[in-house]
Amino acid sequence: MIIVPEAVIADLITPEASFTAVERVFASMAARSAYNFPVIREAIGHADALYGFKSGFDRAALNLGLKSGGYWPGNAAKGLTNHQSTVFLFDADTGKCRAVVGGNLLTALRTAAAAAVSVAHLARPDAKVLGIVGAGHQAAFQLRAVAAQRPFEKIVAWNRSPEKLETLRGVADELGLGFESVSIEDLGGQADVIVTITSSHDAILHGAQVKPGTHVACMGTDTKGKREVDNDLIAAATLFTDEVAQSTTIGECQHAIVDLTIRPEDITELGAVINGDHKGRTSAEEITLFDGTGVGLQDLAVASAVVELAMSRGVATEVDF
Amino acid sequence: MIIVPEAVIADLITPEASFTAVERVFASMAARSAYNFPVIREAIGHADALYGFKSGFDRAALNLGLKSGGYWPGNAAKGLTNHQSTVFLFDADTGKCRAVVGGNLLTALRTAAAAAVSVAHLARPDAKVLGIVGAGHQAAFQLRAVAAQRPFEKIVAWNRSPEKLETLRGVADELGLGFESVSIEDLGGQADVIVTITSSHDAILHGAQVKPGTHVACMGTDTKGKREVDNDLIAAATLFTDEVAQSTTIGECQHAIVDLTIRPEDITELGAVINGDHKGRTSAEEITLFDGTGVGLQDLAVASAVVELAMSRGVATEVDF
Repeated sequence: MIIVPEAVIADLITPEASFTAVERVFASMAARSAYNFPVIREAIGHADALYGFKSGFDRAALNLGLKSGGYWPGNAAKGLTNHQSTVFLFDADTGKCRAVVGGNLLTALRTAAAAAVSVAHLARPDAKVLGIVGAGHQAAFQLRAVAAQRPFEKIVAWNRSPEKLETLRGVADELGLGFESVSIEDLGGQADVIVTITSSHDAILHGAQVKPGTHVACMGTDTKGKREVDNDLIAAATLFTDEVAQSTTIGECQHAIVDLTIRPEDITELGAVINGDHKGRTSAEEITLFDGTGVGLQDLAVASAVVELAMSRGVATEVDF
Repeated sequence: MIIVPEAVIADLITPEASFTAVERVFASMAARSAYNFPVIREAIGHADALYGFKSGFDRAALNLGLKSGGYWPGNAAKGLTNHQSTVFLFDADTGKCRAVVGGNLLTALRTAAAAAVSVAHLARPDAKVLGIVGAGHQAAFQLRAVAAQRPFEKIVAWNRSPEKLETLRGVADELGLGFESVSIEDLGGQADVIVTITSSHDAILHGAQVKPGTHVACMGTDTKGKREVDNDLIAAATLFTDEVAQSTTIGECQHAIVDLTIRPEDITELGAVINGDHKGRTSAEEITLFDGTGVGLQDLAVASAVVELAMSRGVATEVDF
């Protein structure tokens, strides 16, 4: 059994490798050669923790397994990450446990990679201004992954507490991009691509604020009740997602489904665009929106990539099991 | 992170330690301080495999985690066990993965321990004859675990292919118990305790064949469609189970629920008897029946016991993670 500890993963995997792994598994999902199993998510009644599993099988890549993940709000006080994830991979031919991989950094990378894949396939080729809504832990990962997909010149960013945007400014500096802290109206007026990455329960970005031709990647909503954009934006946009079943129940599209603004058939899997089965963006005026809900197969895809990298570089720990 | 490989487990855990772990977690379940999460079970469309997870949290013992388990029918030809299981334990205070434990032997031991716990709490104290229905891999584990619970003098056993009972005869010899291969009618007529441990889809043991005062532990049925006993026996018996929700849907009681022979309220959790909240057997004539469906918390309980034993004996592998 291969063990890849959390500490070695940062030196192994790149945003590019994550992009390739996530793009491939989205394509497999849309081709129906990969599917996610039902998600388990439980408030365990101890340490205020939320805990659960996302799992699935990619028959094309033979990736079988799960990510156990949880949120322990008291961890930060102990010097630990509040979100704790571990990925377990199994041999699809025998069922034996093949690898145990630290999942904390991978979760951030696979989420950012999903947004980046959506930008690569749906944003206007000439997009110049990238808008980021949110300044939490994930925002910097999003910026790094998405910035590489288009010839961006400037970042415009909004956060409820603008002073928290300084980390993002640092990343923009490092990437050689201009950076402005702006109002949400100004962000919508300037940005050609917008990534929302908050844990909001109310719409922050409204349809009236977004200009024609924008690509929006909504990456924060992964639970019933969360919400980042209003239904005007959902109604105006051509809708894409990682998995329709999640988009309509726990993703950004859940509210528009409930009030009948849209039907599930109005949402296309991004994988269909990757596979060439859906044309994606059809004009420079179209608003495209990707609802990134986060699926277990993404975790398995990046973890499998990490295991291969760890083995080829000789940093995997192999234990008898 | 602690690794306890499959190969070292046989020398670590005993039927007695498994009994204690399972008895304790059944008590926690009935006291509502432990609960199982929804079960995931998928035919993955590769290698004819069935694969899934059983998981849960025992707040009393702070056991949090899952067993991944699967059935790979082609494994035997490769010299591997068809059933492949691995148990993953997590630190309930932080969510970090605490241990990875081989789950193949543990699955057999925890299943046998459940039957043994039911016999300890429900069989007549003077039970002398133990009946075993089935001769598969699990039957010998059942015999070893259950035989210790009462002053048994003799084993009577039935199997569709009687020649396969020789393994059980060997175990009976080892335990100093008499052994007879009998018809199912003769088994019912002689036995004071009966364990059914088959993968049958039709009733093998019928109510008319079982004498008053018998305790029956039905341990084979864990899936929709399986069945070991008829509804006459279910109707005649006082019913106990590990978890009512599983008993009525995938356990031995599923058929009697469907045809309205019984209602869910007619089934008592064995843990309530252990805790003294249900009186259990009330007469020497009563037929008691335990529907052992197998829950994730049993796996976590025995795996946690193994981790403690492995650490105290210095055979656990500890890896940085």
